[in-house]
Amino acid sequence: MKSTATLLITCPDAKGIVAAIADFLYQHDANILHADQHQDAENNLFLMRVEWDLATFNLDEAAFGQAFARIAAQFSMIWQLKLSLHKTRVAIMVSQYDHCLADLLHRHKSGELDCEIPLVISNHRDTEALVKFYGVDFHYLEVSKDNKPQAEAAQFKLFADYNIDLIVLARYMQILSPDFVARYPQRIINIHHSFLPAFIGARPYHRAFERGVKLIGATGHYVTEVLDEGPIIEQDIDRISHRDQVEDLIQKGRDLERSVLAKAVRWHIENRILLYANKTVIFD
Amino acid sequence: MKSTATLLITCPDAKGIVAAIADFLYQHDANILHADQHQDAENNLFLMRVEWDLATFNLDEAAFGQAFARIAAQFSMIWQLKLSLHKTRVAIMVSQYDHCLADLLHRHKSGELDCEIPLVISNHRDTEALVKFYGVDFHYLEVSKDNKPQAEAAQFKLFADYNIDLIVLARYMQILSPDFVARYPQRIINIHHSFLPAFIGARPYHRAFERGVKLIGATGHYVTEVLDEGPIIEQDIDRISHRDQVEDLIQKGRDLERSVLAKAVRWHIENRILLYANKTVIFD
Amino acid sequence: MKSTATLLITCPDAKGIVAAIADFLYQHDANILHADQHQDAENNLFLMRVEWDLATFNLDEAAFGQAFARIAAQFSMIWQLKLSLHKTRVAIMVSQYDHCLADLLHRHKSGELDCEIPLVISNHRDTEALVKFYGVDFHYLEVSKDNKPQAEAAQFKLFADYNIDLIVLARYMQILSPDFVARYPQRIINIHHSFLPAFIGARPYHRAFERGVKLIGATGHYVTEVLDEGPIIEQDIDRISHRDQVEDLIQKGRDLERSVLAKAVRWHIENRILLYANKTVIFD
Amino acid sequence: MKSTATLLITCPDAKGIVAAIADFLYQHDANILHADQHQDAENNLFLMRVEWDLATFNLDEAAFGQAFARIAAQFSMIWQLKLSLHKTRVAIMVSQYDHCLADLLHRHKSGELDCEIPLVISNHRDTEALVKFYGVDFHYLEVSKDNKPQAEAAQFKLFADYNIDLIVLARYMQILSPDFVARYPQRIINIHHSFLPAFIGARPYHRAFERGVKLIGATGHYVTEVLDEGPIIEQDIDRISHRDQVEDLIQKGRDLERSVLAKAVRWHIENRILLYANKTVIFD
Repeated sequence: MKSTATLLITCPDAKGIVAAIADFLYQHDANILHADQHQDAENNLFLMRVEWDLATFNLDEAAFGQAFARIAAQFSMIWQLKLSLHKTRVAIMVSQYDHCLADLLHRHKSGELDCEIPLVISNHRDTEALVKFYGVDFHYLEVSKDNKPQAEAAQFKLFADYNIDLIVLARYMQILSPDFVARYPQRIINIHHSFLPAFIGARPYHRAFERGVKLIGATGHYVTEVLDEGPIIEQDIDRISHRDQVEDLIQKGRDLERSVLAKAVRWHIENRILLYANKTVIFD
Repeated sequence: MKSTATLLITCPDAKGIVAAIADFLYQHDANILHADQHQDAENNLFLMRVEWDLATFNLDEAAFGQAFARIAAQFSMIWQLKLSLHKTRVAIMVSQYDHCLADLLHRHKSGELDCEIPLVISNHRDTEALVKFYGVDFHYLEVSKDNKPQAEAAQFKLFADYNIDLIVLARYMQILSPDFVARYPQRIINIHHSFLPAFIGARPYHRAFERGVKLIGATGHYVTEVLDEGPIIEQDIDRISHRDQVEDLIQKGRDLERSVLAKAVRWHIENRILLYANKTVIFD
Repeated sequence: MKSTATLLITCPDAKGIVAAIADFLYQHDANILHADQHQDAENNLFLMRVEWDLATFNLDEAAFGQAFARIAAQFSMIWQLKLSLHKTRVAIMVSQYDHCLADLLHRHKSGELDCEIPLVISNHRDTEALVKFYGVDFHYLEVSKDNKPQAEAAQFKLFADYNIDLIVLARYMQILSPDFVARYPQRIINIHHSFLPAFIGARPYHRAFERGVKLIGATGHYVTEVLDEGPIIEQDIDRISHRDQVEDLIQKGRDLERSVLAKAVRWHIENRILLYANKTVIFD
Repeated sequence: MKSTATLLITCPDAKGIVAAIADFLYQHDANILHADQHQDAENNLFLMRVEWDLATFNLDEAAFGQAFARIAAQFSMIWQLKLSLHKTRVAIMVSQYDHCLADLLHRHKSGELDCEIPLVISNHRDTEALVKFYGVDFHYLEVSKDNKPQAEAAQFKLFADYNIDLIVLARYMQILSPDFVARYPQRIINIHHSFLPAFIGARPYHRAFERGVKLIGATGHYVTEVLDEGPIIEQDIDRISHRDQVEDLIQKGRDLERSVLAKAVRWHIENRILLYANKTVIFD
């Protein structure tokens, strides 16, 4: 696989941005592999993702920062550079339902998720054998009403010990404290088992059944301080009928949760997501 | 086309119901074309739709009522019989957006909707030419804050004059009074431009855009006293991305609204819908 | 879970069939849980699936056969009775791609597939650890141009030893001999990685890429003597664009293959499939 | 609406292309509204669409050609410039089925299709009233085995008289001669009622029904000399079951045909389509 660099940029829209970036990359001999951009006219924003082959590029990471600083300053850019060599380190948190976990571990092993998954944390022991089968460290941490701060402190320590970049809540049935959420901005992805904003909160399949909807859904989103209100990364739905009971909704929903969460994680680790105005731009 | 009868039944579940009905139809020489049933275990309900060819059936409508009364009483059935000869008479109410109206009129002309559409009522004159092109009577009735009771009284009179069985709100942008809704139970179908229960109320596309959802939807439902809370008949969604502005959502939504409303109307006029517990069973 | 019986029936359409069956079940005190039927007017066929609770049913399997023989003869029925106690025994055949295998094993462990999976046969050793992790016997059988008859003989012996009812080809990259196919009619399910009948044969994703299609698909079907021409059980598609290279098609396709094959297997083991005229009726 | 210019470019991939184009537009004071590009690594091709506001742009059409010639030559570009002021002039050809025609005319009237539709040609009179209702000229031209060359000559004359840029076959049931196809390369769009390459040729719904597929589809494509083998612009599918007869497939298919054809036409008139290797790149 090629060694590449990916640059994500957000800035006020202005004439000459693309010319400046393209010219900069050309001057430093970059071979552009993919480039995609988006203008948000309403918010006067320019957003861009550009990925290039490092084989011929004549700047290293530090030199890039120095050289790019002038353009970044000129256009008031917020930017981040990510090298494909530096793989995102992912921790998965899970409770008892293991379908998303098993799916992520299998996709990772198959090479579909270009990241490292060194750590799984659970408040149950059910998934321990599965996690170990895939060669991943499993840490059991009991969480109760009484020990939540201590449990989260232990989680933070594990994230630090393992150099975790991204936390994936793969049907983790505990609500994170505001402190937890604030520590990892745009670095926690959750799967919610409804098409948000419908059925925010608990037991969405039961409520979908009671309401008599004809579609059920799942939503992958970043976690923010307000429950189920974070920026949506991906959603999908499946069709149901009167023949489907709650258990059927739950079963069909598992397939949605799996594929939606996997896409959200993949787009994050491939640096395809830009956030603004509580929304995501997905450069696919 | 065959002349057929359709029987819709709801009753408490019990042994022997299917045997009783099947035996009754067999005794009277019915040739069953379609039969579908549903058991709701939770509510202990039995629901059935059966359609048969009238060519060999040896009872007329009145005689059927008398003969079937014994079985209906035995199983405490709520039932309705509908003959294909008696076409549902549909009134369409519309404001300025004419995409659903044009779609319904064209489908009707093509023979896809086996009903009569003698009447369109609008609070705008925009659609008059289109309606008349399809040979349907167009009635303009101004509706304002001040004249709503009088306007509705005029609408009721038109429904009576035209022997209307079903009222279809094809993007009719006025809220019906509780009195209006109460007069036509399970006989008013509305198209809402979101996947309910998300974005109940006004301007759903704008709110969907602000929330940053990845899917937009439309919902066809019966109108009940609580806004957008009636039984859902059909829903569908389309995928959107950051490239879609509000106007794109509105445009994509029009296609959803058209097809969802057309299905809801078709299933109603073909007697495929049974209602219970604020839900629909669609015998497709 | 309830102990139930499922009856599948095919016969020439005639008046009185439903009455006869419903009456028979009522006489023997069956509590019908689900019943679904289909008339094929063109072929004058009647097809039915009925499932009932055995708790109150007053016939055992042998007695049922005797008692039902009269009705079956009267209407020239082909029928099969399946008791939920007798779980279908499934053998999975796989080569190197393990995504469908891992999916089936995980669904089975989660209770989603109500069958037994005692045996996996592969012509590669890649999946051995995964299979054993799920507690299933793994048999490696090399297959080459020279040893195919011997390899198939060994496979037949394993199927017999394990009392296998259903053979699932979960991306098994060897073509079965006509003798193999003839031995297990309607008992071999394959997943083909295209929306048949498009791209019959080898390398469908490559050919889809070359043709420039905008949708890729997967097809679960029964294996018959003619390659990829057997009765289709389930199909699904995903959308692709010019941004997708062959590898992206393959990756997206894996998700389709998994879910389509799982549905096909589930419907088979739940006795929801009736075959006629090289087509399937799925009683869902 | 803004007055904009759209530039479509195809050329061998090379370093510096984006920089050169972006710099050129910047030098001439263009305010870029949308830009999208695609690299085809396998064919070493670079493809780009860029749209800018003409309000501040300091070149007119002729001057653009002169000024851009140097860059175009340097990178061996094939390019086309399209101004939003010059609306594509569309002729629709139709036989008896009018659903696609009615859909296109209604979308055009609603402002969804930013083109002109001055001409409809048909070999039947069925759609004449509809066409005239929308204020479009209708020309009846009988086509038979004997008069095909003369009929096509009359069609060519109409295309010339009306300055037609794009010919849309909206369920036109006549096969065009090779001469016809050769005269309008990449300027004839057809809707085929199957998911190509399945069911090429006649009666696809009947053949889909016989094969027992679980999905039906429609394909919008450019017409080339080989029947149904032209570059695919858009495809979509709908789910069917054993309950659907051929007439149901045809009815469901009409909805697919309408929406797929409308998208294909819209993308063409908005200059979103680039062709290469018998494929389309859709810059959406």
